[in-house]
Amino acid sequence: MVIIMKHHASSDEIQSVMQYVESLGFKAHPVYGDERTIIGVIGDERPVEPETFDLLPGVERTMRVLHPFKLASRDFHPEDSIVKINGVSVGGNQVVVIAGPCSVESREQLMETAAAVKEAGAHILRGGAFKPRTSPYAFQGLGLKGLELLREAREQYHLPILTEVMSPQEVTLVAQYSDILQIGARNMQNFALLHAVGETQKPVLIKRGLMSTIEELLMAAEYVLSHGNLRVMLCERGIRTFETATRNTFDINAIPVLKAMTHLPIIADPSHGTGKWEYVTPIARAAVAAGADGLIIEVHPEPTKALSDGAQSLKPEKFSSLVTEVRRVAEAVGRTM
Amino acid sequence: MVIIMKHHASSDEIQSVMQYVESLGFKAHPVYGDERTIIGVIGDERPVEPETFDLLPGVERTMRVLHPFKLASRDFHPEDSIVKINGVSVGGNQVVVIAGPCSVESREQLMETAAAVKEAGAHILRGGAFKPRTSPYAFQGLGLKGLELLREAREQYHLPILTEVMSPQEVTLVAQYSDILQIGARNMQNFALLHAVGETQKPVLIKRGLMSTIEELLMAAEYVLSHGNLRVMLCERGIRTFETATRNTFDINAIPVLKAMTHLPIIADPSHGTGKWEYVTPIARAAVAAGADGLIIEVHPEPTKALSDGAQSLKPEKFSSLVTEVRRVAEAVGRTM
Amino acid sequence: MVIIMKHHASSDEIQSVMQYVESLGFKAHPVYGDERTIIGVIGDERPVEPETFDLLPGVERTMRVLHPFKLASRDFHPEDSIVKINGVSVGGNQVVVIAGPCSVESREQLMETAAAVKEAGAHILRGGAFKPRTSPYAFQGLGLKGLELLREAREQYHLPILTEVMSPQEVTLVAQYSDILQIGARNMQNFALLHAVGETQKPVLIKRGLMSTIEELLMAAEYVLSHGNLRVMLCERGIRTFETATRNTFDINAIPVLKAMTHLPIIADPSHGTGKWEYVTPIARAAVAAGADGLIIEVHPEPTKALSDGAQSLKPEKFSSLVTEVRRVAEAVGRTM
Amino acid sequence: MVIIMKHHASSDEIQSVMQYVESLGFKAHPVYGDERTIIGVIGDERPVEPETFDLLPGVERTMRVLHPFKLASRDFHPEDSIVKINGVSVGGNQVVVIAGPCSVESREQLMETAAAVKEAGAHILRGGAFKPRTSPYAFQGLGLKGLELLREAREQYHLPILTEVMSPQEVTLVAQYSDILQIGARNMQNFALLHAVGETQKPVLIKRGLMSTIEELLMAAEYVLSHGNLRVMLCERGIRTFETATRNTFDINAIPVLKAMTHLPIIADPSHGTGKWEYVTPIARAAVAAGADGLIIEVHPEPTKALSDGAQSLKPEKFSSLVTEVRRVAEAVGRTM
Repeated sequence: MVIIMKHHASSDEIQSVMQYVESLGFKAHPVYGDERTIIGVIGDERPVEPETFDLLPGVERTMRVLHPFKLASRDFHPEDSIVKINGVSVGGNQVVVIAGPCSVESREQLMETAAAVKEAGAHILRGGAFKPRTSPYAFQGLGLKGLELLREAREQYHLPILTEVMSPQEVTLVAQYSDILQIGARNMQNFALLHAVGETQKPVLIKRGLMSTIEELLMAAEYVLSHGNLRVMLCERGIRTFETATRNTFDINAIPVLKAMTHLPIIADPSHGTGKWEYVTPIARAAVAAGADGLIIEVHPEPTKALSDGAQSLKPEKFSSLVTEVRRVAEAVGRTM
Repeated sequence: MVIIMKHHASSDEIQSVMQYVESLGFKAHPVYGDERTIIGVIGDERPVEPETFDLLPGVERTMRVLHPFKLASRDFHPEDSIVKINGVSVGGNQVVVIAGPCSVESREQLMETAAAVKEAGAHILRGGAFKPRTSPYAFQGLGLKGLELLREAREQYHLPILTEVMSPQEVTLVAQYSDILQIGARNMQNFALLHAVGETQKPVLIKRGLMSTIEELLMAAEYVLSHGNLRVMLCERGIRTFETATRNTFDINAIPVLKAMTHLPIIADPSHGTGKWEYVTPIARAAVAAGADGLIIEVHPEPTKALSDGAQSLKPEKFSSLVTEVRRVAEAVGRTM
Repeated sequence: MVIIMKHHASSDEIQSVMQYVESLGFKAHPVYGDERTIIGVIGDERPVEPETFDLLPGVERTMRVLHPFKLASRDFHPEDSIVKINGVSVGGNQVVVIAGPCSVESREQLMETAAAVKEAGAHILRGGAFKPRTSPYAFQGLGLKGLELLREAREQYHLPILTEVMSPQEVTLVAQYSDILQIGARNMQNFALLHAVGETQKPVLIKRGLMSTIEELLMAAEYVLSHGNLRVMLCERGIRTFETATRNTFDINAIPVLKAMTHLPIIADPSHGTGKWEYVTPIARAAVAAGADGLIIEVHPEPTKALSDGAQSLKPEKFSSLVTEVRRVAEAVGRTM
Repeated sequence: MVIIMKHHASSDEIQSVMQYVESLGFKAHPVYGDERTIIGVIGDERPVEPETFDLLPGVERTMRVLHPFKLASRDFHPEDSIVKINGVSVGGNQVVVIAGPCSVESREQLMETAAAVKEAGAHILRGGAFKPRTSPYAFQGLGLKGLELLREAREQYHLPILTEVMSPQEVTLVAQYSDILQIGARNMQNFALLHAVGETQKPVLIKRGLMSTIEELLMAAEYVLSHGNLRVMLCERGIRTFETATRNTFDINAIPVLKAMTHLPIIADPSHGTGKWEYVTPIARAAVAAGADGLIIEVHPEPTKALSDGAQSLKPEKFSSLVTEVRRVAEAVGRTM
């Protein structure tokens, strides 16, 4: 940390801050400037709250020096992590495509979608059984029945499955059916849930909260990693801003920033990132051009009849065009798909 | 809902949208304008996603007419709701003060704080036993031990208790110790948790998510109300914006807006709303001047030693001044405290 | 500044950064930590861009230590500044009320409003002659004719005048008619205009841009102050956030934050801060409770017929109630009005 | 517009709103729902403020149906506009590259940069002579001397010139030297300036304000178009959000959204969009993959010595690699560069 003293801080105040800092086991190095004195604090600052030092007399503010995460950081793990899921490798040279309906609605709907996305080139099947919905009056998912249909689709189409888990007590159940556990955007800081999936050995896809910084996303990953589960993937799915022309603002910058900060694979979700089917393909192309390791795309055979997220779901034939278009971009940036 | 057709929409497209709308059980009333045709859709739109209609050929966009919440709305419950908690009434003429430490850290710390806030005029004691922390390396709360200390403080100081519950399987346990269940800001859209507290009859305080709209806060309340628990209070605690001079931006507008939209009591949290102890008192005064029904304030006997939120905690003597200052403002707006 | 070196930065890189820093006339003090070395940079950092140092090999990032403003800072001017305008003092113990129509529309409208706000207790009359409008098709103000009507109202009602100036070449003209020059929110970073008003000796009210940080607002003030005009007042008028329930989010925190950072008077604009007349009075009360030195309020005799901002304008009788209610709050916080 | 009446609005209130609407020359069509009555308002709503109708008794809120812009809209101009500048066509199949230093600092710096960007494949030279700077203490540009150097570079390297104009009275001067007039992000709603460039016939590049909506960007274009200048280009350069890992959040969604809403060419600025040189190339690739018609890139021979924006400037050799990489992506999406 660096503690910045106030303009008029007295030398007693400076001494007293330094003594306090050293009483906590840190070393304190003052640097006396013309307008301000700053105090460099040496030691592992991660367990403390820097803002607390602002309370000491004469302190103006305190700034972190170290990132608050460690296991997720490239500093301590310079090589890219590759997460292997039943023969699919996420984080390597190949751009991976995860596709399927927002919600599992019926056997027909799921099987038709699974067949279509497999045919178009998807590597993993997504589908929601437990659905987080803003309204208590909206469709809440098929639950266990949905999980069983997903297992059936996996057997039939040889596609690994990704589905969301919404609460700690359902982790064991969902882990029996799914190859990847998804932590939804609204649960990114549900720490009890992060703790629970951290104790499994299942691959986890953490979606960035719509209100969460990149650093907070990495801290959510740190929760899972620090509980022993190293198979973590991150997903940029759009953030909330003042702009209302799209459902969310897809933070394209987050892709190269995350690639620089962490070794974990980065997946892009242009369906939620835009909220409108007609923008999904251009943003999918952009995400891969920016360096994403994979895509997650909502596909529905009849979007107007979808029980959730119809407006941002692609029909199978549009999804097939998306794959063709994105593959060209992937090749232009030196990757396969 | 109102469906707005594209500028060049054909009469076939208009007909076909109307037929589709009616096939879902709604009535459709077209209004033919010079540049656009709009279609008024009559019926309960709450269970549908308006965006789905945007997929129909010729549709430009669809707008909601009804609020998506009902039980939380003043339209259907014009009178203010008053939540009674062991003799304390929240939502009436008296401004209620909830105070205590961010985290329960030890018996001494809790009892000293409880004595001080009681003495200063607080009505309810707050304290965290299960703590949601951004970092897995930070203090996570005393858990059950913390709950037991809270119960002890309640007996000794005759103050009802408010503490946070973080996951559905802990609701029964926490409800045995606490008079009010707090849903934290990061769990505002943890729907499994909202569902679980909705099935108790304990008063619930829902904190607004740091990037949740007022409408989403009301939808979170609707989850609890629709599962049968009508004792719901809402809390404005600051939102995340581009401004970094304060930890959060306290949304003072939300207070009169919520008072207009809902009958539920509104509590203000200037501690999280600012993140800095020196701004807590002016914002507490402002919140009451704007119409808040209560305050929740973090108090700690030695903020520099607090294990969480020290920077925004008041010392007991400052809290006592806050109560005195806010009481004058409460009286100036015709309330007691 | 503080330069934070990368985790793996070599000692050659550290040396080379220090040499570069010293070649610019600064002194460099390294502090060697366990995970990172930091370099304290001593000297006046205001003319440089800290980010530029991030380009040097081995640098992770650079953080400012000093505020970029000086004349606006309380560090160098601890006493409150009081701006005197024809007998009205802004920034002292009295809360000052500025009121009037958004736009000057006609002699009748202006005189009727001026009479009413004077009667209700306003100290200064506001009114727009040159209007910044988002749409080129909207009413753009009466221009010179509007200025003449404002002068007429000043004579008749003995109220100083505040009106907006929109471009550098109009500063001389507007200064002949107006007692206070308003810089509108959308022009807060129109540096040519700030420069021009800085060269007059007229009091200036700078409205915070809806996208501007508190620091940027103070930098806008610094432009005016550094060109020699010391009669500057600041105005919080709401910022743009994700929340759409109100036109803007009134940043109540900005009031105590600005009072701590600067000696300049702070005015609150609850009309723009909310965008809806029914929220103007509670937010006016809140702003004064939080420490604002004054209010600026839009008043119109017939809001439904207003050519701009009708929705947020108060009728004269509502304005009169506002003054009564706010005066009680002002007294509760030890001020007059 | 659509006027939504309150839940309990009386039939007298509905009648009275309809009469008022018709008194303004609109036609009013009521649609009676179960919970709400809505009133469709027919006629050109652009000159009115919909919020004003919220003031009428019984009205809950009013929603626009028409976009507030017309000349910028694809509805009225379905074909892409192509802006021709001395032999360079912007808005056609070729992706156009604009490059150069943030500020013109000296003849050597400008000529060296111009030679390098020409060699690497740029089509247009950018460079700032009048610089909008947040701090009055920062380098403000060379002014007229800068314009003369730009003219010299144009002659020598046969590259059209783009430079910023900051105030209405400088438009004539800058137009004598520059082939394209840039309106900077902080001046996007400087309506006096938009008016002034609208009266020239020079091509104009309007940069999106850092907290302006897409609709407001189109309204800024409408100002220029409605004053008779049809040679308008728009630029996405990043918006301000809560995320601080990058200087701005590049709104990649804005590219396909703008292409759908308007016929005007869309340029992407990944230098400002990220604020860090190492992210410029991936975001440049992404912008072209998403459909941008051109790029504007900051290049400096020695970024650490740049007087402005050094941190986001590319060295000539990095810029050359950027062009090579982006060209591959352009070809993958069916364009030339």
